[in-house]
This record gives sequence, C-alpha cells and structure tokens, in this order.
Amino acid sequence: MAKILILGAGVMGTAITVPMADNGHTVRLGGTHLDGDIIEEIHASRFHPRLGVQVADTVTPYTYDRLGEAMDGVDLVILGVNSQGVDWAADTLGTWLSPQVPVALLTKGLAGDGQKLHILPEVLRQGLPRGYRDQMQLAAIGGPSIASELAARRHTCVVLAGSDQAQLDRIAALLRTPYYHLWTSTDIVGVEVCVALKNLYALAVGLVAGWREKEDETHNAAAMHNTASAIFAQALWEIGYLVDYLGGQRRSVYTLPGAGDLYATCQSGRNSHMGRLIGLGMSYRHAKAHYMPEDTVEGAELALAIGPTIEALLAGGKLDGAALPLLRAVVDVVCHEAAPEIPWETFFARV
Amino acid sequence: MAKILILGAGVMGTAITVPMADNGHTVRLGGTHLDGDIIEEIHASRFHPRLGVQVADTVTPYTYDRLGEAMDGVDLVILGVNSQGVDWAADTLGTWLSPQVPVALLTKGLAGDGQKLHILPEVLRQGLPRGYRDQMQLAAIGGPSIASELAARRHTCVVLAGSDQAQLDRIAALLRTPYYHLWTSTDIVGVEVCVALKNLYALAVGLVAGWREKEDETHNAAAMHNTASAIFAQALWEIGYLVDYLGGQRRSVYTLPGAGDLYATCQSGRNSHMGRLIGLGMSYRHAKAHYMPEDTVEGAELALAIGPTIEALLAGGKLDGAALPLLRAVVDVVCHEAAPEIPWETFFARV
Repeated sequence: MAKILILGAGVMGTAITVPMADNGHTVRLGGTHLDGDIIEEIHASRFHPRLGVQVADTVTPYTYDRLGEAMDGVDLVILGVNSQGVDWAADTLGTWLSPQVPVALLTKGLAGDGQKLHILPEVLRQGLPRGYRDQMQLAAIGGPSIASELAARRHTCVVLAGSDQAQLDRIAALLRTPYYHLWTSTDIVGVEVCVALKNLYALAVGLVAGWREKEDETHNAAAMHNTASAIFAQALWEIGYLVDYLGGQRRSVYTLPGAGDLYATCQSGRNSHMGRLIGLGMSYRHAKAHYMPEDTVEGAELALAIGPTIEALLAGGKLDGAALPLLRAVVDVVCHEAAPEIPWETFFARV
Repeated sequence: MAKILILGAGVMGTAITVPMADNGHTVRLGGTHLDGDIIEEIHASRFHPRLGVQVADTVTPYTYDRLGEAMDGVDLVILGVNSQGVDWAADTLGTWLSPQVPVALLTKGLAGDGQKLHILPEVLRQGLPRGYRDQMQLAAIGGPSIASELAARRHTCVVLAGSDQAQLDRIAALLRTPYYHLWTSTDIVGVEVCVALKNLYALAVGLVAGWREKEDETHNAAAMHNTASAIFAQALWEIGYLVDYLGGQRRSVYTLPGAGDLYATCQSGRNSHMGRLIGLGMSYRHAKAHYMPEDTVEGAELALAIGPTIEALLAGGKLDGAALPLLRAVVDVVCHEAAPEIPWETFFARV
C-alpha cells in the first residue's frame, strides 16, 4: 500500500481517489486555494458536491494551508489542477515535495510562448526550482476518462505516459483496478498533445448540434451525423499532424489518447456545448458571457492559449496551413470572433 | 451531363440520386426483384417510403424487368444493392452492361471463403463473365454517409476508391455538389475493409448502451462514455491491423472510411441497436428473432459471413489473435451465441 497525494480537489482529482481507495492506499486529497469550500464539505459530509459522490473514509482532505503536511512522506503525487494552475503547482511542489517523489499530471493543456508549443509537464518542469528540474520524474495520465464515470466505477481505459518504464509500471500497478485499466507509454509528447487538442476539436464537432437545431427541419427529419463525422475524422487527422510536428508517436493518436478521448469528449460536456452555442449563431464571446460565464471551456481556453503561437508558426512556415484547416477555423472563431466556416474542400489535404 | 443508372432502389441508392439530380444528370433508378413496391410507389407519388423524401422529377424509375433498357447508353452505374445482392449484380451487369462502363459500389461488406477474406468489388469481378473481368472498371464509395442525411443535403464527405485515377476524377466530378464532398483514393482495399468492419465494431460499441440501461443507476447518474470510447479506440486499432493484413493503407483507416464512418455508425442505426439489445442481456439470436426480425443488421451479417474464415485464419496463425480481441468477442457473440465479454486487459496489445 502506498501514500498518495492528489493535489487539486476538483472532479477529476477526486474521481481518481475511488480506484486508489479501492486498492487500499492511504489517500490525501489536497485542495488548492480555490478548493476551500469543497474540502470543507468533504470534511463535514464526505460528499463532493460537483462530482456527486461520497468520498471514501480512507481519503483524508487537506486544506490549502496544510499542503506541506499533506506532502510529507508520500510515494506519489497526482496533479489534478487545471491548466491555469500549473505554475502554482510548480511553486508548491518545489517548496514542499522531495524531488524523488514522482508526479503524474491529470491536467490537460498546451502552452504557447509565441514561438513554440509546450506540453504541460514541460511547463511544470520549467517552473520547478533549479535543483529539482533534472531530478523530478513527471508522468501524465490521458485517455477517455470523464470524472463522474470513473467515480461510478465505470470501465475506464487510460494511458500513463512518462520517460521511465520501471517507474510507469510501479505507478500503474498502484492505480489499476478491475474497472480502471491503465496502459503505459513513453510517448508523453504524443499523449499530452492528443488529450489537450481533443477539447478544442470537440468544440468543432459540437458546432453541428447547433447547426442542426437552427436549420429548418427537413421533411425526413434527418440528423447530421455525416457532417459531425467528417469533422471528427479531420480532427483526428490534424491531431496526427500536430503530434508528428511536436515529435510524438502516431500510436498515441490512434488509440486511447487520440481517437478514444476525442470520441468521449464529443459525446457530452462543456466543449460540445460551447460548439453548439456557436453553431446556433452566437459569437464565442457572447456565448461565453451569456450562457457559460462560470464554466471553464477547456477547448476555447486552449485556442486562446495557443492561437497566437499557432498563427506565428503558420506565418513562419513552420506549420503547414494546408494540414490544419479545422484548427485555423476554431482559432478564428475563438480568438477573432469569426463565424464558423468549415472549408470542406480543404480537408484531408496532407498525404 | 451524364446518364447514370443506380442499380438497387434502397435508401442509399435512392439518396445518391439527390446530388446527381442537383447536378442535372439523367438519372435512372433501377429496382432489384425486391424493390418492386418501391419502384411502383415512386412511379405513383415520387415518394420513397423508407427514405422519406420525394425523388426528383428527373429521376426515372425502372422495374426489374426493364433493367436491360435502363442500362442502355449509360456512362456510369452505381451499385446500391446490399451485400447479398453482389452475385445477382454480377449476373445482371454481365448480361446487359457494356464492359467499358465503370461501376461504383455503394455496397458494403466482406466475403470469407474459409481460407481468405475478399472485398466485394473482387467478389463482383469474379462473378462477371470471363471477357468482362479484366475490362470492367470497378470503384467504391465509402465514408460516413447515412442515406437520410445525404437525401436531406446535409454536408456529407466520402471517398471514391478505385484503381484508375483519371476515371476516379471523372466520376467524382459527376457526383460532387456543394454538400456532397468527394475525395479520391487508389486504396480500394483499405476503404472497403474499413467501411465493412465499421458495422461490426459499431455493434460492439453499442453494447455499452445496453449495459448502461441494465445497471443500477449510481447516485451520480454517470453515463458510460469512457467505456464506449475505449471500445471505439480498440475498434479503430483492430481495423488498422486488418487493413494492414489485407494490404490496404493506414490513411484510409484514420480519415473518412475508418474513423469517420465508425463515428457515424456508432451514433445511431441498426448495428448500435443490436449491440444495445445484446448488452441488455439477450443472445444475438433472440434479439434478432424477437426485436429486429425484419432488419438487416449489417455488422451481424458480416460477423456471420466472415466469422468462420476469421477463425480459420486465427487457427492457422495467419491472423494474430492478440491483435483482435474485440473482433473475436463479436464473432463469439454473433456466431456462437456467447455473452459479450470484453477482455479489457488485452486491448492495444499490438505495437
């Protein structure tokens, strides 16, 4: 049995306590400064309000001010903050954690600095104190894993990616249950690029739901699965291009992190919902301000985070615009308030 | 403008008359011996009862006994029969059609002879008279194209595959409209394998809907998208293996014929519905006899058609069983009345 700290008490961080508790580990759930209410609620009732489940009695909640104590003697840290919390996490881990303890990220996203794209484990590493950077082992968990479903012990299949196979095997063995199935991969770049981009592309697939509602019903009541499926296929194709570009492996694209996670994300959720609102005819800004003001729409956040860098890479000829018509359309919609125009005839141009 | 005959007046054959008529072609819709009622109805009211749309005035319906006349002077034949009709189509085309006229198949399926798997254009070619076999140009159309949606002019993206690029370009130009988008490919094997197998694998993804209904509601009302997505990803991975095995190209797997068509097929339809019934706990035979007696469940038909050949190829070591756990599970369910057991831990074994 191991001592595991989850840093971030949001839905995904809390959901992963379920397989850990089932495996008999000593689990600590550490809140960020934004999680005070949640930690208090778990202390009081053992109930996670947003996830809708009871937290196991063997999970100990820690408030923000007790994170140093929470990190003491742990064997593994799971990072469950959102993409905006990575810098904070680097500071916190650098202050309190021994650099020998591996850290696995649930956090999804990419960063752009205007010249390059970066995966979040790399951003985290850069934020660590100098002495930690080379020592700390960073891994990441990706794949179709909707938090409420994992918390309900639905069969969930994910990939644990990192650089040290023996370490990955040890971590996977701690987390694996009869319903939580883990594969390991040393393609952390491919996994991270896939699981970040799926949110952005799910927004594009989601447009179709809005178009369908807006259009007059045809007399045969036809759906628009053909249209959504073509966007899905182009999305996967573009993810493949970007994974190639960033040095990842195609295997990640065509298994759980790419195809699997994109499929799950297109079936429900906030990215699809934002796509629907834009498909209905709203601008991104209007839809966000009026219909989803409190929601983090990860696909749109990603477009805002990497859009300028993507445009710089396209302008500089480092990325091939012909390979990325759908990404360009989404960036235009989110960053420049454009109406969604899908350039069908330019799809699948890359050989 | 061209003269085009569609052979088979089912939903897909009739749907494709919509872009053809919009392009101003002279279109003939030829019924098989099973389509008598439909052809009569179109003569009487211009309405296709199963598709739910009016057929354009420029589409001339032909009954079975007038197919010789219907084939006279045409520039292109589109084959819209189902997989059981390929032998009949070969006889009919061999009797009435000039071998210089290209034939494009909408028909999806694979055949197994106990030793090998065959794509349907190959089966059709073998059924042609000797003098025709080397002369007739066969193409195939594949990709996410639900008939009712194409008939409603929803954006639909497909691949036209064949061996002669110039011929493919000519045919694509005849069919392309602002809503019917065609790409060409010389990978007819890859396209045909993908679009056939998607039906079988959609049945597997559909199991999850039945499991979800059958299980007690958890108190957080969790869906099962994680579970469905893992099966979807494994399905795509296995399709890739089988396309490799049969000499097709990965590009077909990861664009419209594979990823796109599998996505569309998992969103609705008879294969998903059969999967749901089996997921609820019925045997395939019971579900078919009691709930879908009149329906052609293409994924199950395919499992029955190729199951024995797949098993022979596995037994002979020609196919690697470790690469195909999901296919084996579906064949067991459909051919041997097994309960669906998903061997999660064996997924993604192939490197």
